[in-house]
Amino acid sequence: MSNDSPNTACVLIIGNEILSGKTQDTNLRFLGSELAQRGVRLAEARVLPDDKTEIINALNECRAKYTYVITTGGIGPTHDDITAECIATAFNRHLVLDEDAVTCLSRSGRALNPARLKMAHVPEGASLIDNSLSNAPGFRVENVFVLAGVPSVARAMFSTFADDLGVGGSIYSRNVDVFLPEGDIAQPLEDLALKYSTVEIGSYPFFRDGCYGANLVVRGMDESVVEKVIRLVVATMRNLGDESSVGEPS
Amino acid sequence: MSNDSPNTACVLIIGNEILSGKTQDTNLRFLGSELAQRGVRLAEARVLPDDKTEIINALNECRAKYTYVITTGGIGPTHDDITAECIATAFNRHLVLDEDAVTCLSRSGRALNPARLKMAHVPEGASLIDNSLSNAPGFRVENVFVLAGVPSVARAMFSTFADDLGVGGSIYSRNVDVFLPEGDIAQPLEDLALKYSTVEIGSYPFFRDGCYGANLVVRGMDESVVEKVIRLVVATMRNLGDESSVGEPS
Repeated sequence: MSNDSPNTACVLIIGNEILSGKTQDTNLRFLGSELAQRGVRLAEARVLPDDKTEIINALNECRAKYTYVITTGGIGPTHDDITAECIATAFNRHLVLDEDAVTCLSRSGRALNPARLKMAHVPEGASLIDNSLSNAPGFRVENVFVLAGVPSVARAMFSTFADDLGVGGSIYSRNVDVFLPEGDIAQPLEDLALKYSTVEIGSYPFFRDGCYGANLVVRGMDESVVEKVIRLVVATMRNLGDESSVGEPS
Repeated sequence: MSNDSPNTACVLIIGNEILSGKTQDTNLRFLGSELAQRGVRLAEARVLPDDKTEIINALNECRAKYTYVITTGGIGPTHDDITAECIATAFNRHLVLDEDAVTCLSRSGRALNPARLKMAHVPEGASLIDNSLSNAPGFRVENVFVLAGVPSVARAMFSTFADDLGVGGSIYSRNVDVFLPEGDIAQPLEDLALKYSTVEIGSYPFFRDGCYGANLVVRGMDESVVEKVIRLVVATMRNLGDESSVGEPS
């Protein structure tokens, strides 16, 4: 199982509201899918509480381990927004008032009180991630991209740098639904996985319309190999049951 | 910000399908909410790929750090289901065929081929987590609970041991919607947060019906303090704007 892209990413989702069950995170799925389309493998994600020590430690571990780290959440004006401060500490940089960020914030027409000016403080040397949806910018420090938590704003920020991340390729993915029990298809599937080790073959069971089945997924960087293996998966599954139990790949 | 429950938990979500963006995880929110109702603070979550080294390292780090670790995913019959093997290695135990698990699996009436028997192999000394929805059981080793990834099955498994986790209390939560910009309420909110440090006060911005606002959340183990602080939050916010901009707490 090694569809390893040369570029990897880690997402750090920052916020007590995700851990308490108050809020359903949707940024992870969006980022994982968008990164894959650009040939970047999302290798890990962590959900962290609003706790400085935890955030700083995770950040330093992950920025050394992965090509990119993307954080979401904690860049607003309130006391529980501590991401910028944590990034500065992790990089051992001062948190400084950024004049361009002040200009971004001024677009709201609201008074720039100390709470709002907090959102114009970024680690020294950071590049701003301005965006069309929010007056408060995100920012980048080295390989760490700092986004808002609100999904629409996170997406707008991500879109401003997404195409700079990739290496020219995509992680291709094809999948097929099979209405056969996983226990019956496991061995032939493993044989294929062992034979074609440059792709990743996943099996995701479901229970639908009163029947057990599995969604079988083939992923890899080489489109022709992904295409070949999904066709082999379909042929192998059809050998195990009647044709009607195996869908068309999509 | 210290609503610290004596008991903490970490959720490890195992599976490439979550990281690739193919599947939207919903187990985290469920578990975070259910744990809080039992006074257990979900302190961290990680999403891990189907990679033995990554899973084993995260498991050993987290089981030492938190009261409980709950894993989801990777306990099916296919080649990409490697959770049981990783748990055994992390605990330095053998993976053994469990006769009670064989009995559970036999209920399906299907032939117990090697792939299905894989689901009856658990780390030596594990206790099974049988459940009403799936014939394949989860299991527990010391403070680590191993659940299926399919949400309905994960929930059925969790319900069998959930009430044994708590310490008699709950993490209480009250919240109120405020149609005032976060930048205007940040300072008075911080003053309250500093004064009432046994509760956690969170502010989650939204844009709704053409207006900016924030959902303000007070959480803590002492219900009377939570109740007192949410009333103070409402009173403080009403002082900042007209009454109609501040909702009723729920």
